[in-house]
Amino acid sequence: MPINPANNAAPGPPRIVILGAGFGGLFAARRMARLNAQVTVIDRQNYHLFQPLLYQVAGAALAPSDVAWPIRGLLKRQKNTRVVMAEVQGIDHQRREVLTGNGRFRYDYLVVATGAQTSYFGHPEWSQYAYDIKSLGDATAIREQILGAMEQAELCELESERQRLLTFIIIGGGPTGVEMAGIVAELGNSTANSDFRQLNSGEFHVILVEGTDRLLGVYPEKISAYTSHALQDLGVEVCTGQLVKEISPDGVLLSDGSKLDGTVIWCAGVMPTPAAAWLDAPRERDGRIPVTGELRLENQPGVFVIGDLAWCPDQNGRPLPGVAPVAKQQGRYIARLLSNELSGRPVPGPFKYRDYGMLATIGRGRAVSNFGRFSSKGWLTWWFWGLTHIYFLIARQMRLLVALKWLLEYLTFQRSSRLIISQNPKGQK
Amino acid sequence: MPINPANNAAPGPPRIVILGAGFGGLFAARRMARLNAQVTVIDRQNYHLFQPLLYQVAGAALAPSDVAWPIRGLLKRQKNTRVVMAEVQGIDHQRREVLTGNGRFRYDYLVVATGAQTSYFGHPEWSQYAYDIKSLGDATAIREQILGAMEQAELCELESERQRLLTFIIIGGGPTGVEMAGIVAELGNSTANSDFRQLNSGEFHVILVEGTDRLLGVYPEKISAYTSHALQDLGVEVCTGQLVKEISPDGVLLSDGSKLDGTVIWCAGVMPTPAAAWLDAPRERDGRIPVTGELRLENQPGVFVIGDLAWCPDQNGRPLPGVAPVAKQQGRYIARLLSNELSGRPVPGPFKYRDYGMLATIGRGRAVSNFGRFSSKGWLTWWFWGLTHIYFLIARQMRLLVALKWLLEYLTFQRSSRLIISQNPKGQK
Repeated sequence: MPINPANNAAPGPPRIVILGAGFGGLFAARRMARLNAQVTVIDRQNYHLFQPLLYQVAGAALAPSDVAWPIRGLLKRQKNTRVVMAEVQGIDHQRREVLTGNGRFRYDYLVVATGAQTSYFGHPEWSQYAYDIKSLGDATAIREQILGAMEQAELCELESERQRLLTFIIIGGGPTGVEMAGIVAELGNSTANSDFRQLNSGEFHVILVEGTDRLLGVYPEKISAYTSHALQDLGVEVCTGQLVKEISPDGVLLSDGSKLDGTVIWCAGVMPTPAAAWLDAPRERDGRIPVTGELRLENQPGVFVIGDLAWCPDQNGRPLPGVAPVAKQQGRYIARLLSNELSGRPVPGPFKYRDYGMLATIGRGRAVSNFGRFSSKGWLTWWFWGLTHIYFLIARQMRLLVALKWLLEYLTFQRSSRLIISQNPKGQK
Repeated sequence: MPINPANNAAPGPPRIVILGAGFGGLFAARRMARLNAQVTVIDRQNYHLFQPLLYQVAGAALAPSDVAWPIRGLLKRQKNTRVVMAEVQGIDHQRREVLTGNGRFRYDYLVVATGAQTSYFGHPEWSQYAYDIKSLGDATAIREQILGAMEQAELCELESERQRLLTFIIIGGGPTGVEMAGIVAELGNSTANSDFRQLNSGEFHVILVEGTDRLLGVYPEKISAYTSHALQDLGVEVCTGQLVKEISPDGVLLSDGSKLDGTVIWCAGVMPTPAAAWLDAPRERDGRIPVTGELRLENQPGVFVIGDLAWCPDQNGRPLPGVAPVAKQQGRYIARLLSNELSGRPVPGPFKYRDYGMLATIGRGRAVSNFGRFSSKGWLTWWFWGLTHIYFLIARQMRLLVALKWLLEYLTFQRSSRLIISQNPKGQK
């Protein structure tokens, strides 16, 4: 019995290799269950991460296993699909092979869905001092940094040091920054007075820094104003029109020359993962890879690029944003397209994105949404946010658990995941 | 305002310092809520760990935040109590101060409850190659080692290497070893066939090694026999009468000269934590510190030692075992004793342990118990085990969550926490 059938050159059903089990890759794979093909999903992690709730792990409201599920478990019923945990090192286009640390994998069709990673806008050295929030490890590192800083402040007699320990500077006023600022402020408000004896919530500073003149730039202006007010109600200092000039072990230097000392959490930018380099394809200015209407590479019709990595224009020629719904819909589209192609039916028309709107939450009880011309805000939107996020959780059995956790936390103000398991602080080690 | 009131020499209510927030320290602190005293609980972690369920984290059945809760949250309503996260470095008996990495803490009464740590029976170098199971970090390391080894085996074409990857050798046939063997075997049985494509559960080997001639030596013999059979039903190879001669990066060498290659999990022995050295007190042969009937040090009546660290004889002069119920009852006893002493009432008689029996579980659906002359086994005992463990969970809101998780897992056979977050293997790095 050959142990790695995909390495075997024997004829058989066509081989589809999917790189990355984020929203794009996972939704593609799930729709391929009935395809007469050998599907291989390669990811360097063994889990699919539900990114929209990652900030809740950073804020100690959810545990890692509430927002991440083993890819194998999600795909175990698909007998035509196997999962490989390996780091991709490159692609051999001539031999149609994906090269990994654990061997080569041949493909007839390749779906590249490796997504985006944090970008420090040309300052990779800032990553030494700032926390970013792309992976599960990032989120638990932020959680432990916040909780650890509070523990240190409780014992610290030096006023300036206490202030630095209790200051959290969040860079980027998009949805991630807004959600992060809200949850960090709430963590401080709910624990500083009750759990600690020497802290009070007035000492806890959360500062949200945004380069443009308003938060949530893609939402209507009145939503931005509401968001600012809602964050200020939680005690967040909103600081718009300020660019970051420098990040150091102590904090940040802003474009107006002011210096903020504290823990820096970077929510400002993303860039494509190295997959772009393996593909040897032209790139747009933002580093993403342009694709045809069928999400293929121009000169390699067997290679598809989807999700945050793809530069895919909408009807008006503007590129689609790097958000989960785009990736999911592209994943499903690829599965339908390949299903038709493999069975000789005509392929569907070019990919069209259906925009069901945006939702962001601002702490406990407030959220904003934007659905085309219609926008909303307030507690009803927050309940809607909670219900949709629970509905969209991938692993069905998690819905009940997460719903129950949120309910308990809502009723008791008690965060269930406030553990400091390993201390791995940045910068001033 | 003095930031660290305990460092201040001003007169005030007496200072009680508790070292360690395990079962002993936590139960002492909780019963001191109404004492006219300044209570300080010092622990190097920010959480209390529910040790009896730690093996479930190693087996990916529960998440770390299901079995550990922030000490601050548990004690936040006790306004006379503060929590300090710090590493204790020593005790200055003359000045009655506890020395930590974060300053000195004065005491009038000291309760030492720092518990036990893993003992490799004179071979500390074995800890490089074997996994042990005392801390939350240990448990997640075992979980990631098992899941990571299965991922590697799935891609491995070399038969001998596959076999080594899929072999798990558990040392020690006490309750911890039995529970660990059961959960590891079940993890293999429930995932090898369904989640992986190249593995089958027959390749998954769990070997339980015990030095004496039967498992669970403190239980009656028929319970030991039942346990052996129950584990064998799960596919565990039970290997009694075998001592470990050597642990190497590849596996273990047993006293009969046989060599087992695989991941080694050490559940065989514990020894007192370094606190014994700080106390400058005589020790018993097992390293524990003998205490008076009132759990005091002979020559320092203001210093109490409780839990796994204390050598405390029962009515027959035999030392009490190092188990959670002893520590809990001793903690409560100290609180009552100090309450009486501080208010001038007569102190209670010497500490008496009430033995409510022992319970251990063998995988899904089977457990054994021993209550004095009465012992039981089977599925009814397992349900009893589940109910009592949920009842004893410290943080009330966790009961519902853990009950729900177990129910979902029981119905779906799906483990919710199978995440490989960081890879930190022992030995063959």
